[in-house]
Amino acid sequence: MANIKQPFAYQHPMIAVDDVIFTIDGSQLLVLLIQSTKAQFKGMWALPGGMVQPNESVDDAASRHLKEKTGVKDVYLEQLYTFGDVSRDPFGRVVSVAYLALMPNRFLDLKTTNLYTGIDWFSATKPPALAYDHKQILLLAIQRLKAKLEYSTIAFSLLPKEFTLRQLQNVYETVLGHEIDKRNFRKKISELKLVVPTGKQERGTPNRPAELYKATSTKTRVIQIL
Amino acid sequence: MANIKQPFAYQHPMIAVDDVIFTIDGSQLLVLLIQSTKAQFKGMWALPGGMVQPNESVDDAASRHLKEKTGVKDVYLEQLYTFGDVSRDPFGRVVSVAYLALMPNRFLDLKTTNLYTGIDWFSATKPPALAYDHKQILLLAIQRLKAKLEYSTIAFSLLPKEFTLRQLQNVYETVLGHEIDKRNFRKKISELKLVVPTGKQERGTPNRPAELYKATSTKTRVIQIL
Repeated sequence: MANIKQPFAYQHPMIAVDDVIFTIDGSQLLVLLIQSTKAQFKGMWALPGGMVQPNESVDDAASRHLKEKTGVKDVYLEQLYTFGDVSRDPFGRVVSVAYLALMPNRFLDLKTTNLYTGIDWFSATKPPALAYDHKQILLLAIQRLKAKLEYSTIAFSLLPKEFTLRQLQNVYETVLGHEIDKRNFRKKISELKLVVPTGKQERGTPNRPAELYKATSTKTRVIQIL
Repeated sequence: MANIKQPFAYQHPMIAVDDVIFTIDGSQLLVLLIQSTKAQFKGMWALPGGMVQPNESVDDAASRHLKEKTGVKDVYLEQLYTFGDVSRDPFGRVVSVAYLALMPNRFLDLKTTNLYTGIDWFSATKPPALAYDHKQILLLAIQRLKAKLEYSTIAFSLLPKEFTLRQLQNVYETVLGHEIDKRNFRKKISELKLVVPTGKQERGTPNRPAELYKATSTKTRVIQIL
């Protein structure tokens, strides 16, 4: 039976990608999950991903799955780690190259395929039960994101193009899971010349509107921030 | 013809590992290379590696190739990056998970297999022409090693268990490719309590023998050093 369902190639390791797609909503780090219809994982949630096709690079496969599920492609996407344990997938030998993607907001045109029954955002720190070794992949992605916040300008990828300094600080506090000192933080951001004022102010807030800033560079740079 | 030489599975991406094995000799960073006998790359050098077997994890495959070629296994080994371009291997679709390994010295019982005609250490910064995309893999490994020297205790993996502070500084200067200030360096190493004196002195040097130290921890830690 196994031979009918599974191609011959399953005797050799197959290669897949899994995308850990994060965004921030309020003070919550969210991860995008899809609901599996596969027998063993029925009803469980999983990271979006799938097999790498013969004619696409592994990076392209990661972009494709991101685009298929969220409709977007021009977002931060980096290779996270390759998970290669022998029995990580009960359906065959599958090695997964995991990617980390960051979205400026959750308001996307989410799409699923006929392989899944649902797609939605969940708390990344308190996710539902995850299929495969996806809990492990998610934990590593959170760890990488925390580390990179401290030594790179990756935080801007979780913000719209124009943002307040309060929003920038909120990215740090949400991901790191603790408050940071406002005065030190603003001093460091200013010293490093990471942002410039746009001359505009935020709209629709009940409080005094704050100034809007933008990143001085659209490229993610390695620089010690915290 | 292609179908006779290549298994059916080549129509799907296959998965291999490549090990970038570094050591330091004097003031040179060395990389271990094997000489290819494959038609297109005949006489060229390449990183040691090969296919992941159905019953071994990707990490285990990296350890196996390291052990096969060098006879050792208890050395620093970390996953570097996965290279997944469609045409990186002219013999078929092969995705390679690259690993970075560090050796305390070059005096190993190097072994080759019947797939290769030679195995030897080469300058990592001025290597011979490399097969596949191995130049790109090597460059990324050097970049990772440089970065990790600055923010981790990875340097100890390139030293014997007991070493002089001069030897420790030499690891930094050799990999980074420039001199570093001796006084500041020793002050930092001392402040961070990274080493303890063994009470012994080095032997066989023409100069006044220096004190031998050892690392306070055998585990590689993340800590800002430079």
